[in-house]
Amino acid sequence: MRFSDDPSAFAHPAVNLGLLMHQLASELWPIARSITGPGVRKTLEILKQEIPELCLQSIPSGTRCFDWTVPDEWSIADAFIEDEAGDRIVDFRNNNLHVVGYSVPADEWLDLEELQSHLHSLRDQPHAIPYVTSYYSRRWGFCITEAQRQSLKRGRYHAVIRSELKPGVLNYGEVILAGETDQEVLLSTYICHPSMANNELSGPVVTAAITSWLKSLVNRKFTYRIVFVPETIGSIVYLSLHLSQMKSKTVAGYVVTCIGDDRTYSFLPSRAGNSLADLAATHVLSHLAPGYRKYSFLDRGSDERQYCSPGVDLPVASVMRSKYGEYPEYHTSLDDLNLVTPTGLAGGFLAYKHILECIEGNCYPRVTVLCEPQLGKRGLYPTLSTKQSGKDVRAMTNLIAYCDGSLSLLEIAERIGQPMWELLPMVERLSEFSLLEKKSS
Amino acid sequence: MRFSDDPSAFAHPAVNLGLLMHQLASELWPIARSITGPGVRKTLEILKQEIPELCLQSIPSGTRCFDWTVPDEWSIADAFIEDEAGDRIVDFRNNNLHVVGYSVPADEWLDLEELQSHLHSLRDQPHAIPYVTSYYSRRWGFCITEAQRQSLKRGRYHAVIRSELKPGVLNYGEVILAGETDQEVLLSTYICHPSMANNELSGPVVTAAITSWLKSLVNRKFTYRIVFVPETIGSIVYLSLHLSQMKSKTVAGYVVTCIGDDRTYSFLPSRAGNSLADLAATHVLSHLAPGYRKYSFLDRGSDERQYCSPGVDLPVASVMRSKYGEYPEYHTSLDDLNLVTPTGLAGGFLAYKHILECIEGNCYPRVTVLCEPQLGKRGLYPTLSTKQSGKDVRAMTNLIAYCDGSLSLLEIAERIGQPMWELLPMVERLSEFSLLEKKSS
Amino acid sequence: MRFSDDPSAFAHPAVNLGLLMHQLASELWPIARSITGPGVRKTLEILKQEIPELCLQSIPSGTRCFDWTVPDEWSIADAFIEDEAGDRIVDFRNNNLHVVGYSVPADEWLDLEELQSHLHSLRDQPHAIPYVTSYYSRRWGFCITEAQRQSLKRGRYHAVIRSELKPGVLNYGEVILAGETDQEVLLSTYICHPSMANNELSGPVVTAAITSWLKSLVNRKFTYRIVFVPETIGSIVYLSLHLSQMKSKTVAGYVVTCIGDDRTYSFLPSRAGNSLADLAATHVLSHLAPGYRKYSFLDRGSDERQYCSPGVDLPVASVMRSKYGEYPEYHTSLDDLNLVTPTGLAGGFLAYKHILECIEGNCYPRVTVLCEPQLGKRGLYPTLSTKQSGKDVRAMTNLIAYCDGSLSLLEIAERIGQPMWELLPMVERLSEFSLLEKKSS
Repeated sequence: MRFSDDPSAFAHPAVNLGLLMHQLASELWPIARSITGPGVRKTLEILKQEIPELCLQSIPSGTRCFDWTVPDEWSIADAFIEDEAGDRIVDFRNNNLHVVGYSVPADEWLDLEELQSHLHSLRDQPHAIPYVTSYYSRRWGFCITEAQRQSLKRGRYHAVIRSELKPGVLNYGEVILAGETDQEVLLSTYICHPSMANNELSGPVVTAAITSWLKSLVNRKFTYRIVFVPETIGSIVYLSLHLSQMKSKTVAGYVVTCIGDDRTYSFLPSRAGNSLADLAATHVLSHLAPGYRKYSFLDRGSDERQYCSPGVDLPVASVMRSKYGEYPEYHTSLDDLNLVTPTGLAGGFLAYKHILECIEGNCYPRVTVLCEPQLGKRGLYPTLSTKQSGKDVRAMTNLIAYCDGSLSLLEIAERIGQPMWELLPMVERLSEFSLLEKKSS
Repeated sequence: MRFSDDPSAFAHPAVNLGLLMHQLASELWPIARSITGPGVRKTLEILKQEIPELCLQSIPSGTRCFDWTVPDEWSIADAFIEDEAGDRIVDFRNNNLHVVGYSVPADEWLDLEELQSHLHSLRDQPHAIPYVTSYYSRRWGFCITEAQRQSLKRGRYHAVIRSELKPGVLNYGEVILAGETDQEVLLSTYICHPSMANNELSGPVVTAAITSWLKSLVNRKFTYRIVFVPETIGSIVYLSLHLSQMKSKTVAGYVVTCIGDDRTYSFLPSRAGNSLADLAATHVLSHLAPGYRKYSFLDRGSDERQYCSPGVDLPVASVMRSKYGEYPEYHTSLDDLNLVTPTGLAGGFLAYKHILECIEGNCYPRVTVLCEPQLGKRGLYPTLSTKQSGKDVRAMTNLIAYCDGSLSLLEIAERIGQPMWELLPMVERLSEFSLLEKKSS
Repeated sequence: MRFSDDPSAFAHPAVNLGLLMHQLASELWPIARSITGPGVRKTLEILKQEIPELCLQSIPSGTRCFDWTVPDEWSIADAFIEDEAGDRIVDFRNNNLHVVGYSVPADEWLDLEELQSHLHSLRDQPHAIPYVTSYYSRRWGFCITEAQRQSLKRGRYHAVIRSELKPGVLNYGEVILAGETDQEVLLSTYICHPSMANNELSGPVVTAAITSWLKSLVNRKFTYRIVFVPETIGSIVYLSLHLSQMKSKTVAGYVVTCIGDDRTYSFLPSRAGNSLADLAATHVLSHLAPGYRKYSFLDRGSDERQYCSPGVDLPVASVMRSKYGEYPEYHTSLDDLNLVTPTGLAGGFLAYKHILECIEGNCYPRVTVLCEPQLGKRGLYPTLSTKQSGKDVRAMTNLIAYCDGSLSLLEIAERIGQPMWELLPMVERLSEFSLLEKKSS
């Protein structure tokens, strides 16, 4: 295990934890993942070394899940394009983005003109290999840089893809961390993209670290459902198996993705937009990263598409660093482990840690006395009244002023403009003096 | 009939319909209308040639209607001011705005000083004849340009008004176009101003064209109540006869006025401000004319004063081009058929057509599957996933994401930023694949 | 009595009333007030000369009131610092801010270094004597200007405080002005600061004038509870005695403080923020002083801290001129009767007068006819219709348009943008014509 269960290790993630997460990402980097196949299994096995509680599940190809069907399993041994001289000018072993995901087997000699219809590149990013897939329509293709494409000479080329597409299984992993109640918090991340760092590895890596931190908590109030699934089909499969339980128990959930670069913070709301998941996330970001980018649910693009769909209606939002689709390296070979940094991952970890602290610590506090309590006699208020006195204890008196039992601590924190996680010790202090009661609702 | 019942004729009103509406306005232009009398009847008869379903009604003078009484009927044969040489220096035959509406008969020789108290002109618009009426207080007067007034020489003048004011009737016209339900949409326009174009003729002319278009609709959902009334007293009379039916059935209504010039679009909300009439109108204008002018109900001035009055409480708003009281030619001889144009009328028609399309097509759509439907297997989604794919079908996936049966299509269109009339074909397509149900509420 | 009961005297407070209020403040100025003791009693006795109905109450030291205990009574005969030559370099007789409030007796010779720990001054305001108290922790001290402090020479000083701190009483005054109903309006002001003008005397002085004006009203609808209490402990004592009655009867309340300077107007909302007290105050200020400063409940600092505390929950707001803590002279000797002016006091009086007029005159008006009433036949509307007519009677027609019995007159005034106190005569006029009914809710 890379991440210790020692609470103190999580208090300052920038010191050490960011580096450990980046190391885990590096280990997962070379694996040729797709929505099914050995790459997913290898990835889950490495994650299980970090989280022994991770249960690996497999669902057979052909299984019906709502409007979808689990596809055949795809595996790939090799893929390349040779020129007439026998030189491999494109080689899957150099970069697993070179082959279109779910390509059918191929072994053809083609003219350059014929080959072109099987090539994908990005005119605006001449040095990036694009990421392209075709899960549900049978075709084959190669992805190369626009620069290489422009350099191809007339002649014949040998395109070989040694892939297999046949009935097998779809894999995913899940962890259930039981809490004091059976009310659940959902964390969902995906494990289906090949070598990309922000839009793939940052998600499972931060989720693994958060899982370790959650395990270190004593008196954990909520039960945590943490899933590592292939995007779209994986969350649909998972929902088809657990929808009833999740609908009745989930109080908040997050899709953890694109959480590793160092540029910005982003928020994508749930469809409802006002769930506990939304409130906790925007509260934390407003203090941690006041200039964070606010997206609309219309900008969604990951598994909240399923979790928030009509009839599913889960309170699932997403906190990200640079959001998918919004940074130039997205879905190209440029989304690498230089873009994702230890400090970027540590910042993402800290955001989710504070969010979950807010959810865990939320309660409906109520003062036990009428009028303001006399804080001075308990050493909580200056005894000398000057022009300045009172301002220093503003956060505590403001907290007390709203503890009428009708507002949650999260709502109070918003109203008085304080980070909720800084109010938690005050709530404890006031409770020790019997000046506050913590109601659960 | 000028306007065909052919649906295709209404699809592009700027091509031909604008010209036809302008021709109808030209035919109605010279008639000396007032709130009662032969001018109203002549106007209604011409409109009946366009709309054979138009029923002409007459209510006797002296009839009590709420706080009001139908006034005596007014007719005018001639009116002029002669100078001592016998020259007609002001002549009703040249412009029917020259006489104060509802003037009592007069035949007097007066000094210029005495005459002045019977003259009306506009200091700030020296070349405009103002429009002045005195329906409920017996007086007589003439309206002339300030330029002419300044040129009047000392001397004696012969003022003659050959009018009659005696018990008769108040006339109005109504059309009921039955639909699949008895829920009603109200369109109200007025026919009581003499020769003015935007603040009079644009209203009945666009309403007549909209009526023809409504007749061309197959499967019309709503029943349409379309009334051509003298302003204020006419709508009060009409409400006194139909209030109970209208209160229980009306889902939306509009006062159609000032809808023919080419300058801007304007919106005046209902008193409640959040009725279907308001939502449909602002939705359409936000797409058709994003810079449209938003007025407050405090700026009202036409028959929404009656339709929205306390206890009447109908959901009646008004979409206009240049609003009454807000353009310099308003209530003067300058409000003519140069100000009102074929393209201005066509734009007004199109706004109301889209509004009524939104009201007709509104429903509560609900997706029939859990999670996102697999659009790809139905040819509704690209099978190759690239950096760009998904964006092209954003409108459809956004539509689906909100079809949870709790939101109307109009609300969904607002939320996803699409013109509702462009979503209607998508709703049909998805319904054909049995992916959507259309609930009525 | 300084303030007459003649209603006309209150109509234009700037003419005469401001001067009378300033005179009363001058008379109260020299008294050495604190939260208990002879200064409070002397102040209440002078106020009783203005308001014979004022009842003086006393509560024994040691009485428990919620989380607090009434402290010992403090009195002070003399206090000074002498230098070695026997010259009084600091003398309580010159300015009663020189001694820390509630100082215990002292009679000590000290070095300058020892003396420093008992001195208070303001580095940023070198010519101001600060106001400092220590009610609940026994200490003694002197307040001097920073300029004087810098000029003190090494040597020995004789510090003498001839104070007494022993069981006694806490005093306050209350007036109940009965109205037609037992529903109450609360006015609370404080009488516990020594010689300061805006942050002390403006409150009781304006409250005394408002009390006289309230007495002059015929048909006063509400009962007024007007209290003159020492801040914090006084309102807590008062609430502990009257909470049940106040919770069930209070419709609106205000803390009257800092209401005498000429600079600005300020508003501090109640904790709920949407009570009648808030609505009436912001309505009045938006017309009387559109640029007034809007504070948050988080900026509170006077007895609304108690009145709005959880479980007490009274609808108490505060309208001020320059708010405590927000003007440089606050809590120093510079807050004097040059800062507080006759026009400043008159403006404060007028704001509260209009607020209470709005609360007194509020009702739910409903028109008695359907459609617009015919105002012309009652002489309330011009009979000649021109381009301009209608605009002159806009306020009345807008008033009528919203009199549907569901909106209060205060809400209507807000919606139509008119000062409510200017609508009151219109409501009376329309009621005389039987066009309006005034419902009480």
